[in-house]
Amino acid sequence: MSDRLVIDDIDYLITCDSQNRVLRDSAIAIEAGKIVEIGRSGTVTGTERVSARGRIITPGLINTHTHLAMTLLRGWAEGVDLDGFLKKVWAAEGAIMDEATCKLGTELGAVEAILSGTTTTLDMYLHPHATHQGAVRVGLRHIAGPIFFDFPGLDSLEWSDRIAFARSWPKRLAEIGGPWIPTYLMPHSTYTDSPEHLREVSDLARELGAAIHLHISETIAENLDVQGRYQKSPVEVLEFAGILDRHTIYGHGVHLSESDIETTAKYNGAVAHCPGSNMKLGSGLADIGAYIDAGVNVGLGTDGCSSSNDLDMWQTMRMAAHLISIKRSPAHVDASSIFRLATIDGAKALGISDQVGSVETGKFADFIAIDLAKPHLTPIHDIFALLVFAVGRGDVTDVWVDGEQVVRDAKPTKVDAVEIMTQANKRVRSLDLLKESF
Amino acid sequence: MSDRLVIDDIDYLITCDSQNRVLRDSAIAIEAGKIVEIGRSGTVTGTERVSARGRIITPGLINTHTHLAMTLLRGWAEGVDLDGFLKKVWAAEGAIMDEATCKLGTELGAVEAILSGTTTTLDMYLHPHATHQGAVRVGLRHIAGPIFFDFPGLDSLEWSDRIAFARSWPKRLAEIGGPWIPTYLMPHSTYTDSPEHLREVSDLARELGAAIHLHISETIAENLDVQGRYQKSPVEVLEFAGILDRHTIYGHGVHLSESDIETTAKYNGAVAHCPGSNMKLGSGLADIGAYIDAGVNVGLGTDGCSSSNDLDMWQTMRMAAHLISIKRSPAHVDASSIFRLATIDGAKALGISDQVGSVETGKFADFIAIDLAKPHLTPIHDIFALLVFAVGRGDVTDVWVDGEQVVRDAKPTKVDAVEIMTQANKRVRSLDLLKESF
Repeated sequence: MSDRLVIDDIDYLITCDSQNRVLRDSAIAIEAGKIVEIGRSGTVTGTERVSARGRIITPGLINTHTHLAMTLLRGWAEGVDLDGFLKKVWAAEGAIMDEATCKLGTELGAVEAILSGTTTTLDMYLHPHATHQGAVRVGLRHIAGPIFFDFPGLDSLEWSDRIAFARSWPKRLAEIGGPWIPTYLMPHSTYTDSPEHLREVSDLARELGAAIHLHISETIAENLDVQGRYQKSPVEVLEFAGILDRHTIYGHGVHLSESDIETTAKYNGAVAHCPGSNMKLGSGLADIGAYIDAGVNVGLGTDGCSSSNDLDMWQTMRMAAHLISIKRSPAHVDASSIFRLATIDGAKALGISDQVGSVETGKFADFIAIDLAKPHLTPIHDIFALLVFAVGRGDVTDVWVDGEQVVRDAKPTKVDAVEIMTQANKRVRSLDLLKESF
Repeated sequence: MSDRLVIDDIDYLITCDSQNRVLRDSAIAIEAGKIVEIGRSGTVTGTERVSARGRIITPGLINTHTHLAMTLLRGWAEGVDLDGFLKKVWAAEGAIMDEATCKLGTELGAVEAILSGTTTTLDMYLHPHATHQGAVRVGLRHIAGPIFFDFPGLDSLEWSDRIAFARSWPKRLAEIGGPWIPTYLMPHSTYTDSPEHLREVSDLARELGAAIHLHISETIAENLDVQGRYQKSPVEVLEFAGILDRHTIYGHGVHLSESDIETTAKYNGAVAHCPGSNMKLGSGLADIGAYIDAGVNVGLGTDGCSSSNDLDMWQTMRMAAHLISIKRSPAHVDASSIFRLATIDGAKALGISDQVGSVETGKFADFIAIDLAKPHLTPIHDIFALLVFAVGRGDVTDVWVDGEQVVRDAKPTKVDAVEIMTQANKRVRSLDLLKESF
């Protein structure tokens, strides 16, 4: 018998399966990275057994839009809207974001992510091979991908270099290893990538079997800018450039017209809703209820720490719920639907719900344990309301990704968090001088 | 020399004093419940010394509107607006909220509060002598006060009994002991207390030297109801009944007209802003920026756990900041001002800023320690942005109230949290039957 780990005596197992089952007093067996059995406590056999008594087990959280390396810029650009934000952030990025720093920043972000119960991230950033190496070292299921701008960015790549790098991406991924991820290409946005270039990306995506992620309609100003240039909304540009023929997930998607929503749904497209970042930067409040009703796949994201200050998907769930309450009414907020946004619906939004997002046999063993023995989690009248409105980052004790335990007793198992924090603090010191200039 | 405790080697001391000083590498001495000295690390002497290396010390957080006993109803009324909420909650309260249960629920809430770094709460609930006993046992600075409705409520008191109870309140407080608190009277609202009764309460408040707390303008429906009955807004009723002649703090105050804001400022009145509850119940978004600009004192509150699900003032700060960003613009959000809302401005809103709300000599020793050695708190570019947008409940390690350490290493020192949780779980079991009827 090969190694077969049993997580036994689970108090509440939140499956997020199609029937949204919550199992009491149950057990999970995992083998070769996959969930192979789910049953009653004490009935599931294995070569190793750990107890989850007094714990909730849920699918790992899925962060569908972030920039992990920017964790190094936490708190760097405060009290500014998106325009002011980009100005401050681009200056700091120009000063420090070389390949090694991107890796280091991603390690810091990945440690924060897994400690808070996030097991999968869709991470758009420069030097994705470097960021991916960092995240894989920590144990995160880290969906990176080549990034595209019309202009040579901080990574100083000409367009043709970007295309060549992207063509080599599957090979690079295989070399780096780590938990399985889908292939993604990540043009930055319709205001930094021309329709012609986006057409090239969609052609390449077809060639590579890749999905696509980009920023769409984050602000009204962006919509006006793109409309002015192409007489099209950002979503119309995507359709025109063939992007939507591939599985596409928008970062933000705050300001989608009815027609944009319809188009997105028609192509089975998805929105990575980032309520914290959208509120903090004053970008607006996406009407997620309308998107969902129209059949758009919706996942949740934190955005990068430079705009949202942390990578806390629990906060993100709570804010998403509050925004639906405000935009529509409290009766539209069903806590279990919100929790699904952060798990199985996030997986659907990424196009990988056959692999992750729920605790079901055959799926990758990506799940987390939450300690119930806390005053702020007592008593329990509604387990999903507890998860969405009371559980927080500090309640996550253990995390498995790909069947490997990457967090044990609230500590990362694969890396030394203190070492990463020390390096990060050291690396950002050179920004102090830059700070004076603002 | 009497007992003199020195908290030494403080990495960041957030004073929230009038100059908003942040001191690096400093020390605090406390004696007989008060802060008696602040100086450089290693220069302050005492009979006992603890190290706060790697810690931020800040004033304890001040929750200016809550109902701690309702912690027993966490998650009890989900997906409902204020009307639906009250219906569900009143049924549950009717079933279990006797005196002993009020005490138990308050103990549970008080433990949650102190563990998350809250040192003072303004707590409106039935049987305030019982709730106060519970909170004092935990070590919280717990501002309770007699509650008033026109009708006999769950506590079955006629109006004359309420007045008699309130007259005896200072004596009862003295008998219970615990950290100093101001005297407060708490009529529930202008929709449950007639102007004539409010007049009696204001007369009694003058007699007792008491301040006043009540729900005001939480929803538009409430405003219309009160307007229909008295041809006055809730704030106009307060002015008419003489309530505003006493120091008054409104719970919620979401929908104040320009004239209401002006009146409130004229009387040096205050608003306990509860963004989480207001969003969750769809009550509306208070324009706190306008209140502050007009000179209204603003503090932050969580409301009770039945509407906001936890007592987390960190979440509350973050949501308050986001709402200002949305209602006005990100440029209006200054993280240090938000942090002051939860500390010194909360104390001002309660009328006790000469006693608590900042770390200054002569004030009560109410402060908290936050562990900086966390990935999600690395690096630090802006200490106030870190406090408002990244620090959370789980980062608070130690809490002092009245100079007594009530939390040590994230555990309460005066009570057994497990015992309280066990009792709470047992007590709410009888609600299961009631749940079926909804």
